[in-house]
Parts: sequence; C-alpha cells; structure tokens
Amino acid sequence: MKDKKTVNYGLYLVTDRIALNGRLLIDSIEEAILGGVTLIQLREKNTSSLEFYEIALEVKKLVLKYELPLIINDRMDIALAVDADGIHLGQKDLPPRVARSILGDNKIIGVSAATIEEAKIAEKEGADYIGVGALFPTDTKENTRRVTLEEIKRIKESIAVPVVGIGGINEENIDAVKSTGIDGVAVVSAILSQNNIMESARSLRKRFA
Amino acid sequence: MKDKKTVNYGLYLVTDRIALNGRLLIDSIEEAILGGVTLIQLREKNTSSLEFYEIALEVKKLVLKYELPLIINDRMDIALAVDADGIHLGQKDLPPRVARSILGDNKIIGVSAATIEEAKIAEKEGADYIGVGALFPTDTKENTRRVTLEEIKRIKESIAVPVVGIGGINEENIDAVKSTGIDGVAVVSAILSQNNIMESARSLRKRFA
Ligand code: NI
Repeated sequence: MKDKKTVNYGLYLVTDRIALNGRLLIDSIEEAILGGVTLIQLREKNTSSLEFYEIALEVKKLVLKYELPLIINDRMDIALAVDADGIHLGQKDLPPRVARSILGDNKIIGVSAATIEEAKIAEKEGADYIGVGALFPTDTKENTRRVTLEEIKRIKESIAVPVVGIGGINEENIDAVKSTGIDGVAVVSAILSQNNIMESARSLRKRFA
Repeated sequence: MKDKKTVNYGLYLVTDRIALNGRLLIDSIEEAILGGVTLIQLREKNTSSLEFYEIALEVKKLVLKYELPLIINDRMDIALAVDADGIHLGQKDLPPRVARSILGDNKIIGVSAATIEEAKIAEKEGADYIGVGALFPTDTKENTRRVTLEEIKRIKESIAVPVVGIGGINEENIDAVKSTGIDGVAVVSAILSQNNIMESARSLRKRFA
C-alpha cells in the first residue's frame, strides 16, 4: 500500500474459512482479487497465534503481488508481525486510540460501529474508516446488531471518514446499499461461499465500483 | 522494571481466574505479591481483547506500585497496549524472533519448551528465559507434555538463560524441583487456589528464594 488515503474501500473482502466449504483460503482470496475486490480483511477465530501468523504471512505475500491492502481483524500483534496495512477493531477489541498510539499514523485502523455515537467516537479516536452493520441478516457472524439502510445513511452524513457497510450484502441488495451514499461494501459469503468466486466478485464490483 | 537482567525468576505467579474459585483477580494478585512472588504472568483465555486489555491495565498499575515485572501470556498486542515488561510465548504462539524484532531488546520474552531442542531454539531466537514443564500433573492447563526433573536438569545444563519450572509445583515437590538447579518455579494453584494466598506465597518463597 502506497498511501492509506488512496485506499479504495469499494469491495472489501472479509475472510471466513467456514464460508469456503472446505476450499483453500489462499486460492479463494486470489480468485476474489482477480474478480476485483479492493482490499482484504483477514479474520480468524479459534486459531492459535502461530497459525494466525502463518496464514497472515501467506496472505501478505499474495496482496503484495496484487498491491492491495491487508487488514487484520482484531489482532494488532499479528498485524505488526506480518507488517499488514492495518487492523479492524470491533467494539470488544482494543480501543482505537490505544492501537493508534502503537501503530502510528501510516497504518489503517478500521472500527465497527452500529450507531451514530459509536461512529463519532471511533472517528474521534483516529479511525480511518468505519464498518457499519449488520445491514441484513447473516450467518457468518454471531451476535450482530442490525442497522437499517436509513441509519447507515445518517451515520455516513455524521462523519467525515469512509463508511463501509457490512452484513448480508449480496447481489440482491447491493444496489439499495449503494444508494445510501456509503463508500464501500464488505462481503463474506456473497463472494467466498459462491461456486465461482471470481465471477461473484466481478459482478459485485461492477455494481459498486 | 529497571533492567531485565536483574529480574528475579524465583517465584513466578501465573494467573488463572478459574483457580481463584470466584475470588477477585486483582486482590488475589496483590495478596500473592505481599506474600513474595517475584514476577507476574497475566494469562487470560476466552476473553475479548478489550477485556484482556482492561484487566492488564489494572494489573499493570498494581505491579508498578510494587515494582514487579508484568509478563503477558501470548498476546504481544496487549503487552504493547499496557506497556508490560514482556510476553510469554508458547510453542503455538508467535515465533520469538518475530516478537523480538517488534518488542526490541529491553522487553522480556519468555518461551515454553519441553525438550532440550526446543529450549536451544528458543534461546537462539532471543528468549530471555525458558519455561519448562509440565513437571507434575496439573489441572490448570490442558494438553501439556510431561517433563521429568532429570530432563529439566539437562535442559538447564544445555542453555545459558534462566530456566523456570512449571506444572503442578507445590509445597510437597518444590524442594525436589529446587535441587535440579533451575532458576525459578512458576505456580498457579499452589498460590491462587489456596485459602490463604499470601501465606502460601510466603511459604513457597522461603523454599525458593
Ligand atoms: Ni496462545
């Protein structure tokens, strides 16, 4: 990544190995990249730190080849260990201002928010973008709160940093999401669970370029 | 901590909230400190990163008061976030050389090992001390390998950095452990599960000063 200000949040791939139905993570990410995703968030749950690190190293090599940014979910230690481009923090992860004080200004820090207040606090603490959702019902993340399209529109109007919608976004609803004026869509299953990962990414990218 | 070379590994407290049978972690650690433990490793499992961070902040305040070193288990991000004195890495955590490249020379990096080979590799990768066990059967950590007193003696003779024994060490076996010539003992239940935490620590400390 050259400069975090040039990052395209348009089609943001969040990984989930369960969504892959047994296919290889690294191959699936590469297909999604060839289909046009604009950045990658590596999300691992229930792996050891060593395993997370080793997977992150592989994905880092891949994104370097395609010059795409790599964001690590939650784990700043893994992000530092592989020199990722940034981290994504949920409301139960490290406070963004603490992460910022360690990562410095050049790394991307994204923060999940479900209300205008959370989004404003995150922006104030130094978030580079805000992930807002869940916009639609989803199986890939438990205990998500729901955010309506009307609410994400208001969040977008309340802050200056880019807003990325997440949660159940797919072919059917992406046009409605785009109409809210947000900067990008984060998807999991709408790419990673499809038979043709590359074509699915390509089709979504055309709709949210 | 003034200088990591002056650290006393004699009576190393490793925390485990389950061992406390409902008592408060922070109070229990303070009692153990008053009883004479020489350093603290904060180990948390199944907490959110935010919760781990908040607990670590509290413990950090406590150790500052008593001028004892604080080691964080596994999570370098938490250690950086609270400016802990170091981290302890298992064989399934980040590689020590990677942690060293990020933490620099002034932070303590401890590594778990169960064989001479693992201990030598850890030392070569920059470990400041090696934790060796499990010396005796224990309930507090699953899937531990067993290491005999004869084996820990040989490990101690094979490396130059301090060796700390761990796993089921208590009043009954601490003299036998000390006779191996190692530098310290790490304990969990023999302090944290006892009715009188301070007295238990004091008694062990006398035996391994
Ligand atoms: Ni671990």
